[in-house]
Amino acid sequence: MNTQLDDFFEKVITVKWGPEKKSVDIIDQTLLPGTIKRIQIANKEDLWEAIKKLRVRGAPAIGVAAAYGMAVLSNAMPEDDYDGFYQDFKSVKDYLATSRPTAVNLFWALNRMEKKVLSMKDSTVSEIKAALYEEAQAIRDEDVAISRNIGEIGFSLLKDLKTDGEELGIMTHCNAGTLATAKYGTATAPMYIALEHGWEGRDMHVYCDETRPLLQGARLTSFELVNSGITTSVQCDNMASLLLKSGRVKIIFVGCDRVARNGDAANKIGTSGLAIIAKHYGVPFYVCAPSSTIDPNTVDGDHIPIEMRDPEEIKSMWYETPMVPSAVDTSFNPAFDVTDHNLITGIITEKGLCQGPDYEKSFRELGIF
Amino acid sequence: MNTQLDDFFEKVITVKWGPEKKSVDIIDQTLLPGTIKRIQIANKEDLWEAIKKLRVRGAPAIGVAAAYGMAVLSNAMPEDDYDGFYQDFKSVKDYLATSRPTAVNLFWALNRMEKKVLSMKDSTVSEIKAALYEEAQAIRDEDVAISRNIGEIGFSLLKDLKTDGEELGIMTHCNAGTLATAKYGTATAPMYIALEHGWEGRDMHVYCDETRPLLQGARLTSFELVNSGITTSVQCDNMASLLLKSGRVKIIFVGCDRVARNGDAANKIGTSGLAIIAKHYGVPFYVCAPSSTIDPNTVDGDHIPIEMRDPEEIKSMWYETPMVPSAVDTSFNPAFDVTDHNLITGIITEKGLCQGPDYEKSFRELGIF
Repeated sequence: MNTQLDDFFEKVITVKWGPEKKSVDIIDQTLLPGTIKRIQIANKEDLWEAIKKLRVRGAPAIGVAAAYGMAVLSNAMPEDDYDGFYQDFKSVKDYLATSRPTAVNLFWALNRMEKKVLSMKDSTVSEIKAALYEEAQAIRDEDVAISRNIGEIGFSLLKDLKTDGEELGIMTHCNAGTLATAKYGTATAPMYIALEHGWEGRDMHVYCDETRPLLQGARLTSFELVNSGITTSVQCDNMASLLLKSGRVKIIFVGCDRVARNGDAANKIGTSGLAIIAKHYGVPFYVCAPSSTIDPNTVDGDHIPIEMRDPEEIKSMWYETPMVPSAVDTSFNPAFDVTDHNLITGIITEKGLCQGPDYEKSFRELGIF
Repeated sequence: MNTQLDDFFEKVITVKWGPEKKSVDIIDQTLLPGTIKRIQIANKEDLWEAIKKLRVRGAPAIGVAAAYGMAVLSNAMPEDDYDGFYQDFKSVKDYLATSRPTAVNLFWALNRMEKKVLSMKDSTVSEIKAALYEEAQAIRDEDVAISRNIGEIGFSLLKDLKTDGEELGIMTHCNAGTLATAKYGTATAPMYIALEHGWEGRDMHVYCDETRPLLQGARLTSFELVNSGITTSVQCDNMASLLLKSGRVKIIFVGCDRVARNGDAANKIGTSGLAIIAKHYGVPFYVCAPSSTIDPNTVDGDHIPIEMRDPEEIKSMWYETPMVPSAVDTSFNPAFDVTDHNLITGIITEKGLCQGPDYEKSFRELGIF
């Protein structure tokens, strides 16, 4: 066991039960990296606000927070009959669903909790409350298991690249880490699993792209990695070419938002550029994708719509004074881009490693669809 | 003529004569893009400080500022004999040379001014003073002529790509513009020359990389382009892949710090990554290089040393609060990278357009070395 890693997870984990399971305990991600502050949430307004204001963020983490929240809030509801309880439950659930209207995992987790209630019409309200705690725990544990499997596969790749006495250079983009999930993250899972298997932090050196404009790599990924004891660097996104040319980086792991049937993968803006540069220099490029993100109904990357975000994120956010003249257009602010499957060395799912160029065949063989 | 362009140059030009040529008039680049303020410099301490603090920056602009400064400061020196004058001149020259010890153009301009003095031992001090004004003006005019030639060649490329009624998408990285030179810039020269030839600002749409960590694209290039009337966007460096994939950009112009004999070109960090991505999507990529930057003594890009800069530029500069945890390493902060000549569509010099893959042959044919 790695004591520092256990302490790290205890401190940094996105969502856990508060004392006596009467609250949801989250790390306030809006204060990172400067301040590590955990908050206990015991009413629906605070949970709504925490999701809305990105105090808890990352699709799996939001799902777990919502599920934990429904268990805690349901437990505080009156012990009258099933119909009264369900009415109260439904009201809270519908309210929470308005906190982030585009967060698919939020609805998925809330719906799964509702299904549990609907399946227990003949039980006592007390039994339903207990079952909701179990369901929330299951949602969390399943996410941990998925990440662990992805991490084990990624770790086997790291072992193949490792030479004694040298730190293994690994690169990642944005935050697909602990702070986005229930425990191990996706792109970071190989590194945390390596620690669990006895590697020391200095056996690796993770290079985090700062990831403009929202700086998730600088603020979040480097924060969690360095706190777990791993040697961590941050560089500007435009330094990737020189960094990869230097030979310091032996493998790249990134997360993903959605993978099309042919293996084209949508992820944070900048991912596809990094993949092109990685291919140029011959650095292996892996996408870490829970099978739930692989969508058989999306033929290819051209069918994934690209969200454009607030121009002010580029122009003035973070800065003491605006860095772009007001007359200049910054409306080209895409949230993500799509990496062509031909640029991807492999897609790591919890069910196994998929390799191209025929990713659809690989997905089918693993029973993903 | 383009009146807006004339007004723009009058307002934004890096260096000009102050009233009665008794001062050097510069735009204070440290205040951009928020404040447009010109300052008149009439003593050596202020000029030293302006160069040191990057109020005037960009190799050719520093050279012109130093030459103008030597003319103004020499003019205020006592009219005694040659030896006394030369002693005063040398003292000011040596002092100014300490303002930026790595600025080759600074020394080059100061030395050229000194050579003028040394060549006029038999003239009166009054004649020497007049000749120094002429020499400074010649240094400036030669830079303008070089940029204009580069701009004309670049403009011919733009004309070939232009379709009626559509804005022509052009991309650039960092600042190789008016604010770095005497007038037209290098990478921006094709666009300004286009305006001089009657194009309107809306005939083009220039996409400027913000250029982390120092944000020269966001703060400087977009400032000058939008003020000249050209439609201008700024995007984060990591958006290049999606931007080029979108087809909006038809051609890329970048500047350079040094070009090796084989055509490998050192320029601001991020340039080589952009070139790799441009090649992937088939977008023409041109390096704008005054022939003085082409170094026959540098065999190839591997022989160009890469300067590493202050880690705090990545970590905390510009930000209200530091964006990277203090324990994280940001020492990989290279000032520039080298673009392989195989990624470059052409190198535009004032003597003509050089095309690869045998750039050395092309340089020789144009008489560059």
